[in-house]
Amino acid sequence: MTHLLSTSCTIRPPATKIERTWGVHMTYRTSAAFGYCRCPIFKPFRVKLQRKNTVYATAAPITIGVEQLPKSGSSLNQNGNSSKPKKVMVIGGDGYCGWATALHLSNKNYEVSIVDSLVRRLFDHQLGLNSLTPISSIHNRIRRWNSVTGKVIQLYVGDICDFEFLSEIFRSFEPDAVVHFGEQRSAPYSMIDRSRAVFTQQNNVIGTLNVLFAIKEFSKECHLVKLGTMGEYGTPNIDIEEGYITVTHNGRTDTLPYPKQASSFYHLSKVHDSHNIAFTCKAWGIRATDLNQGVVYGVRTDETAMHEELCNRFDYDAVFGTALNRFCVQAAVGHPLTIYGKGGQTRGYLDIRDTVQCVELAISNPAKAGEFRVFNQFTEQFSVNDLASLVTNAGKKLGVDVQAISVPNPRVEAEEHYYNAKHTKLIELGLKPHLLSDSF
Amino acid sequence: MTHLLSTSCTIRPPATKIERTWGVHMTYRTSAAFGYCRCPIFKPFRVKLQRKNTVYATAAPITIGVEQLPKSGSSLNQNGNSSKPKKVMVIGGDGYCGWATALHLSNKNYEVSIVDSLVRRLFDHQLGLNSLTPISSIHNRIRRWNSVTGKVIQLYVGDICDFEFLSEIFRSFEPDAVVHFGEQRSAPYSMIDRSRAVFTQQNNVIGTLNVLFAIKEFSKECHLVKLGTMGEYGTPNIDIEEGYITVTHNGRTDTLPYPKQASSFYHLSKVHDSHNIAFTCKAWGIRATDLNQGVVYGVRTDETAMHEELCNRFDYDAVFGTALNRFCVQAAVGHPLTIYGKGGQTRGYLDIRDTVQCVELAISNPAKAGEFRVFNQFTEQFSVNDLASLVTNAGKKLGVDVQAISVPNPRVEAEEHYYNAKHTKLIELGLKPHLLSDSF
Repeated sequence: MTHLLSTSCTIRPPATKIERTWGVHMTYRTSAAFGYCRCPIFKPFRVKLQRKNTVYATAAPITIGVEQLPKSGSSLNQNGNSSKPKKVMVIGGDGYCGWATALHLSNKNYEVSIVDSLVRRLFDHQLGLNSLTPISSIHNRIRRWNSVTGKVIQLYVGDICDFEFLSEIFRSFEPDAVVHFGEQRSAPYSMIDRSRAVFTQQNNVIGTLNVLFAIKEFSKECHLVKLGTMGEYGTPNIDIEEGYITVTHNGRTDTLPYPKQASSFYHLSKVHDSHNIAFTCKAWGIRATDLNQGVVYGVRTDETAMHEELCNRFDYDAVFGTALNRFCVQAAVGHPLTIYGKGGQTRGYLDIRDTVQCVELAISNPAKAGEFRVFNQFTEQFSVNDLASLVTNAGKKLGVDVQAISVPNPRVEAEEHYYNAKHTKLIELGLKPHLLSDSF
Repeated sequence: MTHLLSTSCTIRPPATKIERTWGVHMTYRTSAAFGYCRCPIFKPFRVKLQRKNTVYATAAPITIGVEQLPKSGSSLNQNGNSSKPKKVMVIGGDGYCGWATALHLSNKNYEVSIVDSLVRRLFDHQLGLNSLTPISSIHNRIRRWNSVTGKVIQLYVGDICDFEFLSEIFRSFEPDAVVHFGEQRSAPYSMIDRSRAVFTQQNNVIGTLNVLFAIKEFSKECHLVKLGTMGEYGTPNIDIEEGYITVTHNGRTDTLPYPKQASSFYHLSKVHDSHNIAFTCKAWGIRATDLNQGVVYGVRTDETAMHEELCNRFDYDAVFGTALNRFCVQAAVGHPLTIYGKGGQTRGYLDIRDTVQCVELAISNPAKAGEFRVFNQFTEQFSVNDLASLVTNAGKKLGVDVQAISVPNPRVEAEEHYYNAKHTKLIELGLKPHLLSDSF
């Protein structure tokens, strides 16, 4: 945690007005809090990079002046096992988790392609938001990765809802595994209005359907590693298992998909995806892993830390920023931490360094043909109040006085509830967690 | 059953070639079996009506030369309760269940509007299919209903995926209840190819999302009566409850949504709808009833029997026809009944006279604000083999020798399984079933 609240970082946060539109009342503005300041966060990022958002669609891989060194994608992965997937397509590879994952896999000698429509950058423009950390264009990112490591990442810019585009890149790249981050991933965004709710479900559900059809048609053995969310389960009053639950009822027993109780149109879109994928595993023999991920925090991974132009995004706004990110920024600028309601809302969390580990573990240990495998991908549970305490304590260590206030909750959710979610399967595969609680 | 296999009906079934595309092998042709024949089925339909398919979009109600008699929609329904919904919008009111329901509700003095894009008729054109019974255009149907009963049904032709259209008709009609049949409803259709799978999920999920947003925006108290399907549950090895199941797990207990295991992109679309609706009930206080309907059979209701121009459709093809319908037609023309695989596939069934009863019961006993109520809407369970036996026995009574053969199953489904689904809630509300087994 303290690495998030450290010293001597010069950044220029954008003057941003953020209004919450999920629900009726919550208005959260940061414009007054920021200006051109020297604020004590995010040591790794000292350089303001020039933004360059060039968005165009192509199904041919884009080469951006990279040195065509011997390609990465050695047939041996870190375990020295040559039978494991070699070519990995990262859909949504320009996003927060996708970018870190693409670099990590490339560094692990997978042959990586990034597929992205770059629409996430458009959302920032449309909503007047921005990453607190300056992020480079995807073209510069990939060029820099090549110059730093000699490794090549192919880039396909386009929309996977366009099946013609998707078909072409499947035929061109011939992936052994597809990691699918390419979805609208913000619950608040999906709740802004009808058109964004519809966009979220249409984009996510149809995009995933297209990926499933592309695998069936072009790469039958390809392993789909799909990012789900722990939010699919909601907050049931019983333990959350990993995807399935064995139920005995009226004297009979069956193992069934764990019941889903999502609480936003975004989370619901992931529920829909899970059902669709499970069916295609059964009907077509697709091999799939659904990573029900918790809330991800952190910016640095070994790879993004290699060069400032590789740095990852940090969203602190009320649409794309998580509670922890917002609290860090609020603490840094002397704004009280805004806790929604009672603050007992408990969720699973993980460090982005564990996200990239988990995805690599899933790829290197693929699901069997016809198997729909579900992993709960998080390492620790925290309530919102827990997070506020962590940030407050981190502030104390840095001599920053942090206050917290309760604000009306714009979400319809239980604010005090039981929460105990299992998360052993990735540990069993070898995950070595980076724990937030260890950093205090 | 015998009323389905009776005598002296002159019809002209279309010469139709139907090829199964769900799965890999099943090819089912009826063209050779039919010609211009006098076949011993469907006594009620003796007249061939001229087809007239005029499809156009409008958000203003279409008046089709109806006599503007005093409108129906008495404030008293059959129970004499004036507080119950009066104005009912039937989305998909030109379809098989929708048409029968619209007439039934109109006959029960609800003020009824039909909303339909008429795309179901387009599917027939595109696939070269046709109803065995000659059905009139929606315009002629409504005009005839008016001339026979004096009752007015308003017609809005348009697509509910077009929110501008939907908004206008909500503002114009101001429904107290919406009965939503307006979805692509064939599992085999959704499995033909990618574009039809995507169409099915996009049309059904986005259409329902739009209805939910329209209710939230324009008719907050409006009761949504949504047609789901028993197919959402799949065939679990435990009893199927009505929507929810109470689970005790690791010493704790909760009542959760019943786990879903749908087995086609169509059935999955209904699963997605159910999750979306449940969320909006919780988040926005929508009142909704999800009618998880079984397989519907029969053509006649009290209302459709009033005039030949009111007659309902009968689909016997492999895309829109159910097993029972296909078996009846096969028996009638001397074709062996084609049983998919082992024939142990068991589902819930109901007479269309019970469909219209159930919908009226749901409307006249609305869900509470914020309640997501689930009824399993069927009256009997049969396996495919049971159906074949029923049709064989009915044939015997009529002196028709009926044979049955097993053909390779084009579907991925259990062919022998446990099946015991609860269906008491509609009985408790007053449903008086018409049982198929009673007709022997």
